Amino acid sequence: MAYVNDNYLKLKAGYLFPEIARRVKEFSAKHPDAKIIRMGIGDVTEPLPAACVAAMHAAVDEMANRATFKGYGPEQGYDFLREAIAKNDYQARNAAISADEIFVSDGSKCDCANILDILGAKNTIAVTDPVYPVYVDTNVMAGHTGDADGRGEYQGLVYLRATAENGFSPSLPTTKVDVVYLCSPNNPTGATLSREQLTKWVQYAKQNSSIILFDAAYESYISDPSVPHSIYEIDGAKEVAIEFRSFSKTAGFTGTRCAFTVIPKSLRGTSANGESIDLHRLWTRRHTTKFNGVSYIIQKGAEAVYSAEGRQQVAALIEHYMTNAKLIRESLTNAGLTVFGGINAPYCWVQTPKGMKSWDFFDHLLSNAHVVCTPGAGFGSAGEGYARFSAFNSRANVEEAMKRVVANL
Amino acid sequence: MAYVNDNYLKLKAGYLFPEIARRVKEFSAKHPDAKIIRMGIGDVTEPLPAACVAAMHAAVDEMANRATFKGYGPEQGYDFLREAIAKNDYQARNAAISADEIFVSDGSKCDCANILDILGAKNTIAVTDPVYPVYVDTNVMAGHTGDADGRGEYQGLVYLRATAENGFSPSLPTTKVDVVYLCSPNNPTGATLSREQLTKWVQYAKQNSSIILFDAAYESYISDPSVPHSIYEIDGAKEVAIEFRSFSKTAGFTGTRCAFTVIPKSLRGTSANGESIDLHRLWTRRHTTKFNGVSYIIQKGAEAVYSAEGRQQVAALIEHYMTNAKLIRESLTNAGLTVFGGINAPYCWVQTPKGMKSWDFFDHLLSNAHVVCTPGAGFGSAGEGYARFSAFNSRANVEEAMKRVVANL
Repeated sequence: MAYVNDNYLKLKAGYLFPEIARRVKEFSAKHPDAKIIRMGIGDVTEPLPAACVAAMHAAVDEMANRATFKGYGPEQGYDFLREAIAKNDYQARNAAISADEIFVSDGSKCDCANILDILGAKNTIAVTDPVYPVYVDTNVMAGHTGDADGRGEYQGLVYLRATAENGFSPSLPTTKVDVVYLCSPNNPTGATLSREQLTKWVQYAKQNSSIILFDAAYESYISDPSVPHSIYEIDGAKEVAIEFRSFSKTAGFTGTRCAFTVIPKSLRGTSANGESIDLHRLWTRRHTTKFNGVSYIIQKGAEAVYSAEGRQQVAALIEHYMTNAKLIRESLTNAGLTVFGGINAPYCWVQTPKGMKSWDFFDHLLSNAHVVCTPGAGFGSAGEGYARFSAFNSRANVEEAMKRVVANL
Repeated sequence: MAYVNDNYLKLKAGYLFPEIARRVKEFSAKHPDAKIIRMGIGDVTEPLPAACVAAMHAAVDEMANRATFKGYGPEQGYDFLREAIAKNDYQARNAAISADEIFVSDGSKCDCANILDILGAKNTIAVTDPVYPVYVDTNVMAGHTGDADGRGEYQGLVYLRATAENGFSPSLPTTKVDVVYLCSPNNPTGATLSREQLTKWVQYAKQNSSIILFDAAYESYISDPSVPHSIYEIDGAKEVAIEFRSFSKTAGFTGTRCAFTVIPKSLRGTSANGESIDLHRLWTRRHTTKFNGVSYIIQKGAEAVYSAEGRQQVAALIEHYMTNAKLIRESLTNAGLTVFGGINAPYCWVQTPKGMKSWDFFDHLLSNAHVVCTPGAGFGSAGEGYARFSAFNSRANVEEAMKRVVANL
């Protein structure tokens, strides 16, 4: 009798984005002429940087030639990419991360999920609310929670509320937590954690021997020079934090697939019998046993992000999307809505009008404006009454969508 | 206090292939002039098929153009690829697998490992011995075993011996097992399971409500027309089996990365309270929550494997490697060694001379012939006294390696 993982049966409904896709598909089928504009899922729309395209063509050609063909690469990623990351994303910002602390992967979603493999079942886990649903769902799957309550919150998880009242920066937990997920710039609220706020988190983690899982997938959207791009810009973070980064939102790699995780060699956890355990070594074992590296072609594309042309082209992409964010922010604010985010992040976090429920607002905009947003409640109960608008689109689509949304509030 | 997953601490030594790499690197550092020929890790050496190269160039160009750019794709893979797989790999062989039962991934190693996510901890798991180490190690990591004994075997796992005496086809388990891994053509022994043998396994699984995890990564190397390429060629297998396939060994994708898993919709497991659970649904939840799909560029490359040119080019690759296998088989047999495999698989499974231990033979060949093989003991205790020789190489290297090996027996 083959038993299934019963923890999966605790999961409520589908993962948020497939549910949105299902509703959009249903609407489309009934209204085939409706020109739907998607501002829901945070998916890039602009072509890859020319530097990445050229590098991938060259890499494909290498694969076509016996002398330059590449078979299995190092599971952790090629040195050329790990070194470019360490140098440009960390050492250039005075964060002392070395190339062998970088693990290249095919996506941050995978990394955020897989990291639980090396952590124990006894940990108390904290997430913010609202939160990227993957953090929660993967903990449910791993058996780190009990059942969901009426609000869709799982027993055993500690929810840290991020609300307008606290500027979307949750307070430190009042109970002791062993693992905490932080995301800055935040998905979905667009808020960032300042140097002072991050320092408090690092101190909390040090005092409690906790681990911070720091998701910095949107760091390239930070416009405020005082906001840290990496948690390793904070003293002591190398002893307490794992950082997730991605090329998805930086260089438009959502369909190309490349990301990385930083596990400093100084990071340690505890075994059941109290022994101090090197997490870099555990993750190396996980990564080499359960993963076979990212395509050479794609890694060459990612490396090109750090070339002079690549950096310029990426900067232009970011500027494009952030001009969209400004447009969304201003249009909706002018229409009388309360809008957060959109300054250091490609997301605007918008209070629904007239106290509408998130999914009602979603359905209302889909039906009337033919615009897809993401219902805030999909990110947790504290997201109820909000919607997330993504800046990932063409200028023309954002302009048109804003016209339609404003006309249908 | 952040706790680690203590199950990782049960793992013995490193994963086999990194350990081989370590020894080779050490030898190379001491003998920089030695021209080492690698017949250890099963890694392809010949360039990608021209059809795949052309398809990937075209896909890179699509990513460079806003009108054809692809962001997030379906996590399960694009329909164009799922349909090509279902049609060519299954329906063409009278195995009634549909496109939506195919899950495209970045590697079979990942799939074999990740499948445990949806299975419960209470299952009794059987593996063959010798065995692809990933099956064992990932069960250890998932907490499905106790500690290892002196032979490196883990308490709780059922080991099914595949020896020369039983033609490397292990008998059905004498105790009841819930999940069993089968690999045909086999890595490392090169043996295949006949239609009759597979039928017995499917019947066993039906009688015991067990699940067969069927690894068919090497199916394209089958030369005997009576040997099934897929377990779904056996009646009833759709109710009891999951199949893993890869483009790695077929089309030389080890560094390009694309594979797939088949989970039929009729496959069911059992919840703790005895409810029948749809495993296709659980895996869909896993795949959409913890994975973000394979690069569009790579999926287009994989699709080209099924074009007329792609099929011809893949057939030429297989023929190249299988001529190598024949050469290895004949050279070592003529030198007086006992050699298995190499007929329906790109691996020869060779008894070490004079009863040498596997790792001693490995070190002996590395030091004296500058040839890397894989020590059989790395695949389990029944692999002691054997070495695996991979046919993945250029003809010139295989010829040279065989000369050196034969001269150093």
